[in-house]
Amino acid sequence: MIKTDILIIGAGPTGLFAVFEAGLLKLKCHLIDALPQPGGQCSEIYPKKPIYDIPGFPEVLAGDLVDNLMEQIKSFQPGFTLGERADTIEKLEDGTFIVTTNKETKHHAPIVAIAGGLGSFEPRKPQLENLTKFEDNGIAYIIKDPEVYRDKKVLLAGGGDSALDWAIFLANIAKEVTLVHRRNEFRGALDSVEKVQELKNAGKINLITPAEVIELRGDVKLSSVVIQKTDTKEQIELELDYFIPLFGLSPKLGPIGDWGLEIEKNAIKVDNTLDYQTNIPGIYAIGDVNTYPGKLKLILCGFHEATLMCQSAYQRIFPDKKYVMKYTTVGGVQGFDGSKKEAPKAVVKAIN
Amino acid sequence: MIKTDILIIGAGPTGLFAVFEAGLLKLKCHLIDALPQPGGQCSEIYPKKPIYDIPGFPEVLAGDLVDNLMEQIKSFQPGFTLGERADTIEKLEDGTFIVTTNKETKHHAPIVAIAGGLGSFEPRKPQLENLTKFEDNGIAYIIKDPEVYRDKKVLLAGGGDSALDWAIFLANIAKEVTLVHRRNEFRGALDSVEKVQELKNAGKINLITPAEVIELRGDVKLSSVVIQKTDTKEQIELELDYFIPLFGLSPKLGPIGDWGLEIEKNAIKVDNTLDYQTNIPGIYAIGDVNTYPGKLKLILCGFHEATLMCQSAYQRIFPDKKYVMKYTTVGGVQGFDGSKKEAPKAVVKAIN
Repeated sequence: MIKTDILIIGAGPTGLFAVFEAGLLKLKCHLIDALPQPGGQCSEIYPKKPIYDIPGFPEVLAGDLVDNLMEQIKSFQPGFTLGERADTIEKLEDGTFIVTTNKETKHHAPIVAIAGGLGSFEPRKPQLENLTKFEDNGIAYIIKDPEVYRDKKVLLAGGGDSALDWAIFLANIAKEVTLVHRRNEFRGALDSVEKVQELKNAGKINLITPAEVIELRGDVKLSSVVIQKTDTKEQIELELDYFIPLFGLSPKLGPIGDWGLEIEKNAIKVDNTLDYQTNIPGIYAIGDVNTYPGKLKLILCGFHEATLMCQSAYQRIFPDKKYVMKYTTVGGVQGFDGSKKEAPKAVVKAIN
Repeated sequence: MIKTDILIIGAGPTGLFAVFEAGLLKLKCHLIDALPQPGGQCSEIYPKKPIYDIPGFPEVLAGDLVDNLMEQIKSFQPGFTLGERADTIEKLEDGTFIVTTNKETKHHAPIVAIAGGLGSFEPRKPQLENLTKFEDNGIAYIIKDPEVYRDKKVLLAGGGDSALDWAIFLANIAKEVTLVHRRNEFRGALDSVEKVQELKNAGKINLITPAEVIELRGDVKLSSVVIQKTDTKEQIELELDYFIPLFGLSPKLGPIGDWGLEIEKNAIKVDNTLDYQTNIPGIYAIGDVNTYPGKLKLILCGFHEATLMCQSAYQRIFPDKKYVMKYTTVGGVQGFDGSKKEAPKAVVKAIN
């Protein structure tokens, strides 16, 4: 059982910044995310895209924003349960919560802050017989650890940035990389498309287009697939160790939708007049996952909501303590790792 | 008469970021600030101090944050009325406003956003006879343009960073720089104290401590002062062109307090359930100047408030238009100067 002060569901920018604001209040955080790394959409969907509306950054790449936030919260030592989806919540008699993931990891905390963005990102799956049978037995939708594919025969399917980028990356790791796409045209960054063309010319990526996987074969584990050219209808059987369809991710509110929270337009209703708490005391919703009158789904709004949520959480955990806010410019930042950052102190010194 | 869409009173971080959010909605902004440069406290009081709680910045100097914000809003070409204090407001029959400064500059806008921080910074003044008579006639409290002091005889008074920093700066510009302080000890950054010591040793700063100015002399213009050593009571008459007491600034809500706005604890009450509007429709208050249940006087909260204010202002200006928010990551940023920033477009390209 993982124990923490604030259990944050969703490790996107809002969830990450909540760790910082909680840390200033000496509250510890643990984050759950269905994706294999922190950063939410910023890391998974558009790490190389510039964002222009983060205050103080005329331009920042989404991936760099996440790196900066990770650096900012480092000294508050957040815990992470990654690659798992928060599935169920149970409220104990003492008002605290137990949240269990789809992999049965249990988390216990007095405060739950849902920072789930548009929901957990579920991969779009191909329509194929026996698909479920081979999931985790040769079929994966998200690449968590590229080392798994070292010296293996890997088939990727898809025509976007994910398929292009992973084909390029795995070309140096896997024994054999095949890329299948139902069109000849790929849609992605120009340099990615050109790099795949180069690797194909050099014989490092085996490209089959326009084509689709139409059949999965194997006993327990996937051992081969049948690929059909969509123009000539020619069929090819390809032996492989892994098949990774990269058809994009689509966000789903998912099991959180069944937690008894008030939902409106696929978002969680919160009390924006005070602290972004939901209809269940002790559960907050911050960032893109919440809704209230005038709500804007902007990262900078999530930062504000996270900050007010932490103040309210503090008062809930310590109903008898009165917290007096100290500016970081004045009081500095004291990490849980013993580190301390603070402004250089003024000296008082005679001039003779 | 200066005309604009949103007249922002206060050019601190919150006011500056409002220009960006307004710009995305194609609304123009003009800012009034009593200080001689944009940035509010961050520029005037602690430009060299690190701030740790701006999301995405593990550490940023207050002055650098202001520079970044100025860069971020540059293409939206904000106007500035600096070194003037917003004094009076008049609501016209059509619901628009005219704001007049203490120097009679008039501004006309349908929306007024007060981003006045803790108020306008008023200098602390020495208790001296005839002080008012010589203000702007040899006495200044804020250095707007150091060039005014080129080849002049200048007396500075004070023992903090401002007095130290300006003494160092003017030592290279003025004909003669004298620094008076009622103690021998100065309080400031170590390198500033050491630099003043060096310049004093080199004969470039004339230091008189512990001492105070006790008398101002001159006809229309200040021509000399009497300085008294606080230990020996010895008196010295010093001829000069300018006397600049730098005893710090203290924020005062000032004339805004008389505009008919609901005030609570020296701050302006706003409707935080929607758009941070005050009790007078069309006038908003954002950042440290406002108050509502759960209010935190943090820069990051001001950014959020500025953003929601701009959406509401847009609807007030264009009641019949429906605005559909576009993410900057998707739609880019189009400046009023014809510039355009946007993410590199994906290509659609065949691989053969």
